[in-house]
Amino acid sequence: MQADLDRRRPGQSRIATPRKETDTCKILSGTYGGMTTGTPIHVFVPNTNQRRGDYTAMAKAYRPSHADLTYDLKYGIRSVQGGGRASARETIGRVAAGALAKKILKLKSGVEILAFVSKVHQVILPEDAVDYESLTLDHIESNICRCPNPEYAEKMIAAIHKVRVTGDSVGGVVTCIVRNVPRGLSSPVFDKLEALLAKAMLSLPASKGFEIGGGFACTDLTRSEHNDEFYMDETRNVRTRTNCSGGVRGGISNGETIYFKVAFKATASIGKKQNTVTRDHQHIEHRTKGRNDPCVVPRAVPIVESMAALVLMDQLMAYSAQCELFRLNLSLQQPVGSINNTHVLAPDLP
Amino acid sequence: MQADLDRRRPGQSRIATPRKETDTCKILSGTYGGMTTGTPIHVFVPNTNQRRGDYTAMAKAYRPSHADLTYDLKYGIRSVQGGGRASARETIGRVAAGALAKKILKLKSGVEILAFVSKVHQVILPEDAVDYESLTLDHIESNICRCPNPEYAEKMIAAIHKVRVTGDSVGGVVTCIVRNVPRGLSSPVFDKLEALLAKAMLSLPASKGFEIGGGFACTDLTRSEHNDEFYMDETRNVRTRTNCSGGVRGGISNGETIYFKVAFKATASIGKKQNTVTRDHQHIEHRTKGRNDPCVVPRAVPIVESMAALVLMDQLMAYSAQCELFRLNLSLQQPVGSINNTHVLAPDLP
Amino acid sequence: MQADLDRRRPGQSRIATPRKETDTCKILSGTYGGMTTGTPIHVFVPNTNQRRGDYTAMAKAYRPSHADLTYDLKYGIRSVQGGGRASARETIGRVAAGALAKKILKLKSGVEILAFVSKVHQVILPEDAVDYESLTLDHIESNICRCPNPEYAEKMIAAIHKVRVTGDSVGGVVTCIVRNVPRGLSSPVFDKLEALLAKAMLSLPASKGFEIGGGFACTDLTRSEHNDEFYMDETRNVRTRTNCSGGVRGGISNGETIYFKVAFKATASIGKKQNTVTRDHQHIEHRTKGRNDPCVVPRAVPIVESMAALVLMDQLMAYSAQCELFRLNLSLQQPVGSINNTHVLAPDLP
Amino acid sequence: MQADLDRRRPGQSRIATPRKETDTCKILSGTYGGMTTGTPIHVFVPNTNQRRGDYTAMAKAYRPSHADLTYDLKYGIRSVQGGGRASARETIGRVAAGALAKKILKLKSGVEILAFVSKVHQVILPEDAVDYESLTLDHIESNICRCPNPEYAEKMIAAIHKVRVTGDSVGGVVTCIVRNVPRGLSSPVFDKLEALLAKAMLSLPASKGFEIGGGFACTDLTRSEHNDEFYMDETRNVRTRTNCSGGVRGGISNGETIYFKVAFKATASIGKKQNTVTRDHQHIEHRTKGRNDPCVVPRAVPIVESMAALVLMDQLMAYSAQCELFRLNLSLQQPVGSINNTHVLAPDLP
Repeated sequence: MQADLDRRRPGQSRIATPRKETDTCKILSGTYGGMTTGTPIHVFVPNTNQRRGDYTAMAKAYRPSHADLTYDLKYGIRSVQGGGRASARETIGRVAAGALAKKILKLKSGVEILAFVSKVHQVILPEDAVDYESLTLDHIESNICRCPNPEYAEKMIAAIHKVRVTGDSVGGVVTCIVRNVPRGLSSPVFDKLEALLAKAMLSLPASKGFEIGGGFACTDLTRSEHNDEFYMDETRNVRTRTNCSGGVRGGISNGETIYFKVAFKATASIGKKQNTVTRDHQHIEHRTKGRNDPCVVPRAVPIVESMAALVLMDQLMAYSAQCELFRLNLSLQQPVGSINNTHVLAPDLP
Repeated sequence: MQADLDRRRPGQSRIATPRKETDTCKILSGTYGGMTTGTPIHVFVPNTNQRRGDYTAMAKAYRPSHADLTYDLKYGIRSVQGGGRASARETIGRVAAGALAKKILKLKSGVEILAFVSKVHQVILPEDAVDYESLTLDHIESNICRCPNPEYAEKMIAAIHKVRVTGDSVGGVVTCIVRNVPRGLSSPVFDKLEALLAKAMLSLPASKGFEIGGGFACTDLTRSEHNDEFYMDETRNVRTRTNCSGGVRGGISNGETIYFKVAFKATASIGKKQNTVTRDHQHIEHRTKGRNDPCVVPRAVPIVESMAALVLMDQLMAYSAQCELFRLNLSLQQPVGSINNTHVLAPDLP
Repeated sequence: MQADLDRRRPGQSRIATPRKETDTCKILSGTYGGMTTGTPIHVFVPNTNQRRGDYTAMAKAYRPSHADLTYDLKYGIRSVQGGGRASARETIGRVAAGALAKKILKLKSGVEILAFVSKVHQVILPEDAVDYESLTLDHIESNICRCPNPEYAEKMIAAIHKVRVTGDSVGGVVTCIVRNVPRGLSSPVFDKLEALLAKAMLSLPASKGFEIGGGFACTDLTRSEHNDEFYMDETRNVRTRTNCSGGVRGGISNGETIYFKVAFKATASIGKKQNTVTRDHQHIEHRTKGRNDPCVVPRAVPIVESMAALVLMDQLMAYSAQCELFRLNLSLQQPVGSINNTHVLAPDLP
Repeated sequence: MQADLDRRRPGQSRIATPRKETDTCKILSGTYGGMTTGTPIHVFVPNTNQRRGDYTAMAKAYRPSHADLTYDLKYGIRSVQGGGRASARETIGRVAAGALAKKILKLKSGVEILAFVSKVHQVILPEDAVDYESLTLDHIESNICRCPNPEYAEKMIAAIHKVRVTGDSVGGVVTCIVRNVPRGLSSPVFDKLEALLAKAMLSLPASKGFEIGGGFACTDLTRSEHNDEFYMDETRNVRTRTNCSGGVRGGISNGETIYFKVAFKATASIGKKQNTVTRDHQHIEHRTKGRNDPCVVPRAVPIVESMAALVLMDQLMAYSAQCELFRLNLSLQQPVGSINNTHVLAPDLP
């Protein structure tokens, strides 16, 4: 869990915000003797590096492109420290929970979830520069930009530095792939797997777009150019020769690798002067003093993985409820302790 | 309600499937004397034009790029007529419910929801070819392609005809705008307004992508190029000079016009021969005999509007629960009949 | 399904309402070739015997002890035919769904759900007059009152006749037992099994109370008089010698027989004159002309069983999701069609 | 909030467990400057008085009438300190949240929620010994047993002492009344108000029964003896002369006082020797060393109030969403800060 939190936290590299937050997680309940108890797990991550001074200006002015105004509109109050509820610190919880989900998915179904940066500002990683089947976490973590291709990683890092010095910021795109997804996950209508993933990704701060498989580009193709034909593989499984659909079909996983992209806009807080208004309706100029990221995209990588893991974990459970149930024959003969989820957190996991 | 159903139904124009389905809706319960009773409304829309013969071939083979296989994997059975649960006929329910939601939103908050076709195959409607503030339903319905710009509408219709003759099909993009959205709708973290819209749109058959505001393109810009500054308008409201964010900020509506795009892939069923396998694992060639659309995008327009309406209606209700509550002072003195939602379906509505 | 609907429908015996409603169910979707498809099942049960005339008086006056007033208060309108949403006809849906749940529970876990009448007006069936372990459906259905003890059944039928002739009505108590419940169902805090059952039962028309195990009476006992000691049975299972707790412990099923009671008040509509007011605030006298039951309790028996089945089915699915998941090892190797729930509706079931 | 927590905590009086737990609550997030921010409120209540030694015996043996076994069956592990998830300490959260709900209900609708002890072991408070309309919190808190009638309070306290000396324990009944409930709360079918209350109460540790209005006793009466006739009161409101229904009709509140009862069994842990089995299937004798209550019922009073408050708060919000919505006319003209829930926690409240 801490490993993923460290991938998310600020101050981890020279292209992230200088804010130093250790984000050390403490488990307050839900485990016993190093094992989960089946009851809620309380993870506590205090903020160790908050500078109150940074936020006094915000108390007066609504920061352009921030949630200050909309929160005030909805809640009739502002809790401005760290941007209140709008602070990206809330993603710590997503990463902590996602770390558990990843572990269970890997253990139970061999599911592997890997995200990486495929675009920063105008630097685009070509589709053919990374192989979805052989990609590993090491490739991704080999550089501070989390782009598995070293050449493009350098270009991206350069792009971030360019805006950093001007106090500006840029956005980008995160690609996520999921291998070994069991077939039959999710449901046909409102809760299609792609719908659940889209919701999860658009719930992330600064995300503006989601596409799965061919995505927006597939509208350039005709059906016959963009069509996954079936064949039987050596293991007598029905597979598709191509994977335009991105591992889902009719809302349900088909066993092929799932891949999708998430667009993140540039972060809101920048050092430049901007026009805005105050809570009492005066026009003023405003310069954010907070120490924000020139590019959040590298830090978004573990968050995207975590949200994907949470969606898939839910669907794996739903699948078990809907389909596995009909393979079982539950009875009173169940021996004590036979339902054992305690190895979920066992240390001997890959 | 019927008006929207007619915009969705097959056989409505020469660029849609020739299948003639009248899709006449019959309200079986939930209304009394032409008014809603506050209890569930049962709308019944029987399928009047189903040719069983069309589907016998599918009973054997899994249609490439169809949900046949994944449904069989999940449910262990196939109900092949009309593609079973995968039939786009399920969207009738979305449109019927959406028609009511639209009416209430319009009545209660003046919310206007308009969708149109902004791309068909490689024909792209330029951003500046349509003005989001002055656009009307008449502009959109002025042609069978539902593109408000006549010149581009013709190009799109031509593109559809081109693939139609070859028995092929194409996809495209639907843009949706929502005007006069009350400020403060939706919530800050998992249920951001853009997240709920993304889920709703990716739950539509054949949709592969969603983007709101600047979307994927905004990753090309730096923060300072892509930044909504605040000002006070003449009505003493805080507004933004630009609207890169697409009407949402931190997951909550800010009162500006919401706009988003949805990508739809080409429909699966085409007349061409394709390789596939049968349920008993044999390789065969397959040609779909069904009468499907060369391009579903024009028919998707009312469906996109409906899903947007359902999301906003839910959020308007949630807003009332969370925020309006604190303006009220409920008491026993409430006169009988004073809570009156009976005019929701009254005929005298704009 | 029809069998249970017939146990619920009016006009089934001389102690029920004379209204003749055949309540014939028609399955409109969700099955194919006599098997469930895994998609929603639409059961349609039209009302074949509604006399509009019966309800004209109600259009003016609020019937004492009816929901007329509260519905008008909430919805600002009255749909008076059959009492609108308050009509007990809504329980048809509960019974139809419950019939399926019962079948799956029986098939998958050998769960047996049996309810019977244990009190009518002041006639109380003694605890020792029925043995929870050997009770069968035949015992219950052996008389029109659905009391498994013939002697008390006669007393109850007599009590119903006594009020019937005066146009009055009486209530009573339904006891429900569930045998062979898998151990470990439900969860520890808000969704305790007894909490879910209590909600299900109090959601039934005319129900006023719920108790499980010792219920209200157990408050007369000290802990040491009311205490389930553990022992190992011959199958090496941990069992309890007594079952004061009624098959649940800490909100979770312990494998012992679940038993609970539901109190039903006398039905509202009676032929006697009563004082009431009209919608326009005038005091008037009112006599219901509807043909209602002198005692609904015998008809409530299948409804109680159905709600219990729905609660347990949900919990069995949740159990599979939470616990069985950790026994599985899902993989891509899953052969097509191996997830097979199609025998759920097969005719060869006990 | 602390006031209610103090009413719940152990060690508060000589008839409660001697365990001294201060249960001091600390608000970690969700408020700013003494006001709620509209975001989740994190209340932290550490356990300051846990004696590990107390629980070592339990690690081996399953305590009779405890949840030890069922938890092990479900989760495959035991977290025995404080009974793990089964510890009644979880009710602290219910009371903390309930305190807020009570405050909002009182402020917004004048709703008053009062619970008291109406039975301890075999000491029953007569119905006519307390007047539901004039009852106050002071009456209830006037003695450690929380029975508003001093004479019966003494009898109850005596009954508790009697079992206390023998190391045994007893249960009892809590009655809860709710005055000034807005009319029209809750919904007609599955989520009837009585159903939601029943679920809330049966989710409490040791509760075995729930009844509303006439409850089980009303089955002794005929309809004509048990019938709430309508009249117009001086404020032109439709009222009922009697209130057998307990303030709900057809699942919806009718504005009369809601009253219901909850049965609590005697607590499980007692000092006497009992037969049980160990996790490894051996029969042994067991004596609990924990310091538990001879009667939990007085401490259950604030918990019952809190759960009632949470149910009503939810329904008040739902009511606002469903019904108030149709009175509003939301628009862009909403001034900043006009939606103001910040006085919810203001100190100047009664």
